[in-house]
Amino acid sequence: MTNSIDTPSRYRMPTVFGPSPGPRQGPNGERFDLSDTPRTIASISFLTDEAELRKLLPPNCELDGEPIVTVEHVTLTELEWLAGRGYSLLSVSYPVRYRGASESVRGSFMPVLWENRCEPILTGREELGFSKLYCELPEPRILQGTRLHTAVWEGHEFIRMAFSDLVVGAPPNSPESDGILHHRYIPSLRQVGESAVDEMVLSPQVSSAKPRYTSFVSGIGEVKFIRSTWEELPTMFHIVNALESLPVLSPRFSYIAEVRGATDLSEQRVLG
Amino acid sequence: MTNSIDTPSRYRMPTVFGPSPGPRQGPNGERFDLSDTPRTIASISFLTDEAELRKLLPPNCELDGEPIVTVEHVTLTELEWLAGRGYSLLSVSYPVRYRGASESVRGSFMPVLWENRCEPILTGREELGFSKLYCELPEPRILQGTRLHTAVWEGHEFIRMAFSDLVVGAPPNSPESDGILHHRYIPSLRQVGESAVDEMVLSPQVSSAKPRYTSFVSGIGEVKFIRSTWEELPTMFHIVNALESLPVLSPRFSYIAEVRGATDLSEQRVLG
Amino acid sequence: MTNSIDTPSRYRMPTVFGPSPGPRQGPNGERFDLSDTPRTIASISFLTDEAELRKLLPPNCELDGEPIVTVEHVTLTELEWLAGRGYSLLSVSYPVRYRGASESVRGSFMPVLWENRCEPILTGREELGFSKLYCELPEPRILQGTRLHTAVWEGHEFIRMAFSDLVVGAPPNSPESDGILHHRYIPSLRQVGESAVDEMVLSPQVSSAKPRYTSFVSGIGEVKFIRSTWEELPTMFHIVNALESLPVLSPRFSYIAEVRGATDLSEQRVLG
Amino acid sequence: MTNSIDTPSRYRMPTVFGPSPGPRQGPNGERFDLSDTPRTIASISFLTDEAELRKLLPPNCELDGEPIVTVEHVTLTELEWLAGRGYSLLSVSYPVRYRGASESVRGSFMPVLWENRCEPILTGREELGFSKLYCELPEPRILQGTRLHTAVWEGHEFIRMAFSDLVVGAPPNSPESDGILHHRYIPSLRQVGESAVDEMVLSPQVSSAKPRYTSFVSGIGEVKFIRSTWEELPTMFHIVNALESLPVLSPRFSYIAEVRGATDLSEQRVLG
Repeated sequence: MTNSIDTPSRYRMPTVFGPSPGPRQGPNGERFDLSDTPRTIASISFLTDEAELRKLLPPNCELDGEPIVTVEHVTLTELEWLAGRGYSLLSVSYPVRYRGASESVRGSFMPVLWENRCEPILTGREELGFSKLYCELPEPRILQGTRLHTAVWEGHEFIRMAFSDLVVGAPPNSPESDGILHHRYIPSLRQVGESAVDEMVLSPQVSSAKPRYTSFVSGIGEVKFIRSTWEELPTMFHIVNALESLPVLSPRFSYIAEVRGATDLSEQRVLG
Repeated sequence: MTNSIDTPSRYRMPTVFGPSPGPRQGPNGERFDLSDTPRTIASISFLTDEAELRKLLPPNCELDGEPIVTVEHVTLTELEWLAGRGYSLLSVSYPVRYRGASESVRGSFMPVLWENRCEPILTGREELGFSKLYCELPEPRILQGTRLHTAVWEGHEFIRMAFSDLVVGAPPNSPESDGILHHRYIPSLRQVGESAVDEMVLSPQVSSAKPRYTSFVSGIGEVKFIRSTWEELPTMFHIVNALESLPVLSPRFSYIAEVRGATDLSEQRVLG
Repeated sequence: MTNSIDTPSRYRMPTVFGPSPGPRQGPNGERFDLSDTPRTIASISFLTDEAELRKLLPPNCELDGEPIVTVEHVTLTELEWLAGRGYSLLSVSYPVRYRGASESVRGSFMPVLWENRCEPILTGREELGFSKLYCELPEPRILQGTRLHTAVWEGHEFIRMAFSDLVVGAPPNSPESDGILHHRYIPSLRQVGESAVDEMVLSPQVSSAKPRYTSFVSGIGEVKFIRSTWEELPTMFHIVNALESLPVLSPRFSYIAEVRGATDLSEQRVLG
Repeated sequence: MTNSIDTPSRYRMPTVFGPSPGPRQGPNGERFDLSDTPRTIASISFLTDEAELRKLLPPNCELDGEPIVTVEHVTLTELEWLAGRGYSLLSVSYPVRYRGASESVRGSFMPVLWENRCEPILTGREELGFSKLYCELPEPRILQGTRLHTAVWEGHEFIRMAFSDLVVGAPPNSPESDGILHHRYIPSLRQVGESAVDEMVLSPQVSSAKPRYTSFVSGIGEVKFIRSTWEELPTMFHIVNALESLPVLSPRFSYIAEVRGATDLSEQRVLG
């Protein structure tokens, strides 16, 4: 396990077999080109209760503007780092302002996201600080103009997103944002409850990876988190139930978009 | 996200929803009783080439005695932390001696293990430093006295363990060992190639969790790692191919056992 | 596609590739030996309303004795016709008396059973007339003495069997029975609503395949069919809802048994 | 189980719960509208050896013109009879001329097709006479301009279709054809080797269901059937190996198309 000084390699466990191929490092150490990678985004936003949402803030963050929660189901295909395979994810986020010792940024905080494949969960948690968890994300069901996305774990459905009355439209201007914030946390083995890593990190906006919309429709979106028991979701019930406690005060923008172009997220950085 | 001083809680990402239930922390912070938890172990050992195996050693370790590789397929059921569900794993290990700044231990080094469920992979990597990866581990195929265990990823079989001529026997005495060693490694976000955590850790032998055999048969065991391409295993080909490079010089002990009693591994500790 | 007169071969679709290997015909036309094949049976019986149950009777049958419904989850392993693989099934049955033109038999009628593998569903429907359907049958969850079996289709749980207070006991004497009855039905293509095959068939008791119990516990069993919508179970909602309409008037015998020995069901015959 | 004379209902096993919802009969007996149902077709044709292909002909059929085998992977979504879900299939076909007692038709004979969902397999076999079998059909892998479709059963890949150099083009004129032919066969229970149903059936061309192309690219296509053992494919090895025996003498037209519009196949009829 040696890295040349010129080309430091990325490692993850296991280490003894050499550098770890992943989204930001090909089998020969190369980067991947994501400038034309397609994805489908199904997004629902809603206004919630400010006091309730404030309970779900990470260190050094406060809510920024209206308490609007955005839930997105994203389908990724043609991923070069997976030799052409794809996967899906479902994320939750809301706008925050971070004020640290040396800098202040505004963006979306992503407290949790689910993915239906273990490999990007491991690389995303350990290399990026994304709070990724596993669940099944079945193909959307499309019936008479209604489109239904669900999240399921072991026969238990715990999130349901329904879209209807979709009409072709133009993507809105993105709000000004420095990027997406995450709370990166790795426990220490030296003392229960202590951390080895505890830091706020940022996935910055990358102008070169600005998504190009190839299709855009907007309409009515409804998202429902389903209150769940420990028996149903033994490692996730508290997360789903906290999200279920956020009232939907009024719907906001909902859309489904086909997009091309992404970043490999190698710009991910620790906030100061 | 506050811990009382008296009862520190375990956290993993995501953090903002409170302490994280897992193998070492129930939904109310309690520990689980594993003293009667059953598991089935299918184990194959073989003598390999010392020079080849030496290429797969972690920091501060050397081979200890004969270069014997052990491959084990383990089926776990009735796990309380998963509300009664189970999963399977397939591990690789070999005997090493660790010599650190302040201590020296002998045990099995586990460079990699695969599991067919994402939740224990996350807790095991982050809370314990186990080099866990995901794959499918189908139920064994048992045909006319031959028992076949395989490891599969996306339609590609990459490990095959075959048992035959199994006869009832007595479990051998365990070799003297301080436990199982792992190389715990978490990358830093500050500099590519740098680590946030890089330490040798130990799962110590726990006398109270000494397994009680309820069934034991031994016989002929053959294990085969299948050389794989990047396209077949884009994040794991280098691991499987390194293991495939270890020649089987002669078979050693192979057995299948039913066992009761385990530890929750909360004794896991960093080696000095 | 030619059969010798001496050894007629079994065919199923597709036909042009030659005889079809299956449970009753090996790759070389041979029969399989099931005399030591293991299976685990988890069985719950309950008394229901006679008038409700009478709605679910096949042609030429009436209820025989008390209206007792039996629901069984069975796990099969080491199946030679699947080259050592296994699968699970969940069946429903109740006692009937069949009176046909030329014979009268008593036995259990099996209106429906679910299996978690497509191959035995096809052979069972077409070669035997079993009313097999597909669903997921997860491994049982065993938590603090309670054992839970479920049936799931696409993220929707529709049957739940719970066992508790299990104590070792002796298997009861089987009731006198001629076997298990099925309504074999294949539609015609010549006219919608007409049948190509419509007959009552019997899986006779086979004395040589009398099961040998290797473990037997009995206790409290509760089964619940979960009322479902067309959207949740578009091809099966009417079946599950009909079963849900059967009230549980009082529990009857429930047990879990490990058994060895089975028949390949080649004795299956049409009732006259 | 009674049908009014005016509206005969379709039944499949199980029968006692009433008419069976399916592709040609909604929950209230209605038909479904497939006039805008989307599907993606990935098609590869090749010239093979006439004598080899002649071994795979059904009753009353001879090859019609050049011995060209077509292998198609089709992805179906938004299926109303599955409440908006979809599935994939992979079919094999070649041109034949059928000459029966009372009619003569020309079309493609489909000896076998695989689907990755059990429900359409059951309805297709029993209501239509399609020779459907089950396998996994993973999402295509798309890597640097190459598109790979595979068929997998229990960790064993047995068909591989690769597309490259795809360029936008116009769909060719369909050859004159009366439709798709199938050999419908259901065994009898009265005598091993005898049939309850044995007939040639036709899925006629339906002018109202003429597909509308929304995207069309053609290029180089290569299909490979992978020789398999009984242990790998215990119920299908003979099928895959027979297809593997068909030499690829020269490639013919290969394309990938997005199409809208289908029939529910209720025109399926028995050939005389």
